[in-house]
Amino acid sequence: MLEYVLEFRVRFGETDAAGIVFYPNYYKWMDEGTHALMEKAGFPTRRLLNERAGFPLVEALCRFRRPLSFGDRIRLVSRVEEVRNKSMRVSHAFYREGELVAEGYEVRAWIRGIGGQIASEPIPDEIRRALLGEGGTIRASDE
Amino acid sequence: MLEYVLEFRVRFGETDAAGIVFYPNYYKWMDEGTHALMEKAGFPTRRLLNERAGFPLVEALCRFRRPLSFGDRIRLVSRVEEVRNKSMRVSHAFYREGELVAEGYEVRAWIRGIGGQIASEPIPDEIRRALLGEGGTIRASDE
Amino acid sequence: MLEYVLEFRVRFGETDAAGIVFYPNYYKWMDEGTHALMEKAGFPTRRLLNERAGFPLVEALCRFRRPLSFGDRIRLVSRVEEVRNKSMRVSHAFYREGELVAEGYEVRAWIRGIGGQIASEPIPDEIRRALLGEGGTIRASDE
Amino acid sequence: MLEYVLEFRVRFGETDAAGIVFYPNYYKWMDEGTHALMEKAGFPTRRLLNERAGFPLVEALCRFRRPLSFGDRIRLVSRVEEVRNKSMRVSHAFYREGELVAEGYEVRAWIRGIGGQIASEPIPDEIRRALLGEGGTIRASDE
Repeated sequence: MLEYVLEFRVRFGETDAAGIVFYPNYYKWMDEGTHALMEKAGFPTRRLLNERAGFPLVEALCRFRRPLSFGDRIRLVSRVEEVRNKSMRVSHAFYREGELVAEGYEVRAWIRGIGGQIASEPIPDEIRRALLGEGGTIRASDE
Repeated sequence: MLEYVLEFRVRFGETDAAGIVFYPNYYKWMDEGTHALMEKAGFPTRRLLNERAGFPLVEALCRFRRPLSFGDRIRLVSRVEEVRNKSMRVSHAFYREGELVAEGYEVRAWIRGIGGQIASEPIPDEIRRALLGEGGTIRASDE
Repeated sequence: MLEYVLEFRVRFGETDAAGIVFYPNYYKWMDEGTHALMEKAGFPTRRLLNERAGFPLVEALCRFRRPLSFGDRIRLVSRVEEVRNKSMRVSHAFYREGELVAEGYEVRAWIRGIGGQIASEPIPDEIRRALLGEGGTIRASDE
Repeated sequence: MLEYVLEFRVRFGETDAAGIVFYPNYYKWMDEGTHALMEKAGFPTRRLLNERAGFPLVEALCRFRRPLSFGDRIRLVSRVEEVRNKSMRVSHAFYREGELVAEGYEVRAWIRGIGGQIASEPIPDEIRRALLGEGGTIRASDE
């Protein structure tokens, strides 16, 4: 399965009045990881948007194990975990010095705009293959 | 159980390159709803912080049913759903013109700083009662 | 001149690791004030966007007089200060309990998309009149 | 004078309903540039905060020359431009493929917390020297 590793440091403005990371930022990072994944797959979001297509969110969850502080060096591992008929699931694991500090996932549906309408559609084969990684076998499960 | 209704309109900067709300903002709104709940309960976050206590996040999930656009009028209903020994669960439901457009929850643990250390602790009785609403029965379930 | 008063409280996530408001948020609030002004003028941004027009930023400045904390009640007074040929200047003053805590301005240019190109254009008369307030005299100064 | 070059790509969530970068993000990037400068100077913000000191904002301005889009590769050059008695001025220039797309500055004052009070103070000599770069001559101008 496709995987992307994003490395960054917690920025000053990403913390809150309690001095630790304001939690919506984890989802911002997960989103960034997924866009990087799509680019690595050869289907950058920018191009998908131009073709009126994309992978909007269906559901996202994050579990917070350790608070993060300004300046912490984070390693985010984003991985396509499952490719269904019309959606995919991406897992995200956050590490600080090797320790798992948070983990989550996103479920995203493939959509395409048709005549002013937006509709959920089966993920095209070429995108499916790219998400699964080269030589990947297509998972048969339907959504 | 304690409930708070937050009404707002989607701001310009809360949307993304696809023209709809950038999804981490839903969590920002849920967080805002919970702080408002705590204030309504008589325990505003600001005061808890001064006493080196608070309800940091353990887990948060959101399901996105309809995309939201700039200017949409949103009604967010945040409700204490369960008060366990050391944590609580707050549910959040987003409505636009009466339609449920997103829903989620947060699990938050009660912590207190003791001698430079942060520790998870049982939720104090006065806070528990306030979260349950007046005359509420204390739920016996342990975390 | 057109004026709008936005009242809000500083949110938890708007503060930073130093415990005070993370400064880019002031610009976010100024932007919100200007969109509210445009709506009051009868030209909501959403409609302008549909017509491929708008008032993007040319320049923005803010002076910070007092640090703001989570929970502070803020009154933001946004006012059209000058309407030039192709741009306008909006002033923003932030008050907390009557005290001026920050002040700034935005210069925004009127643009319109023509055949895939974006161009700066003279502000249409009906918008100019609305920005100046009813019965306002049109300022002759050119940009 | 001390200089820092930050390279990044515009993230998906940093754009707005008009499809271009939401302007408060430029200030977020300037802030990030300044924290990187301070770290390069040997005085990381995290350490300053622990010593109850820092460089909060007095004023910030940005001029926007070209709209930026999701995915654009940006090169931000942040430079200490002037070190006065109690404050400093940092300039920020944003480039995309060699073209200047935005430019701004921040004025920041040196403060230190004394007995629960925050006060503006002369910038300590060791910090002044670090900001000016090694072998730099101390500028005599007072604030």
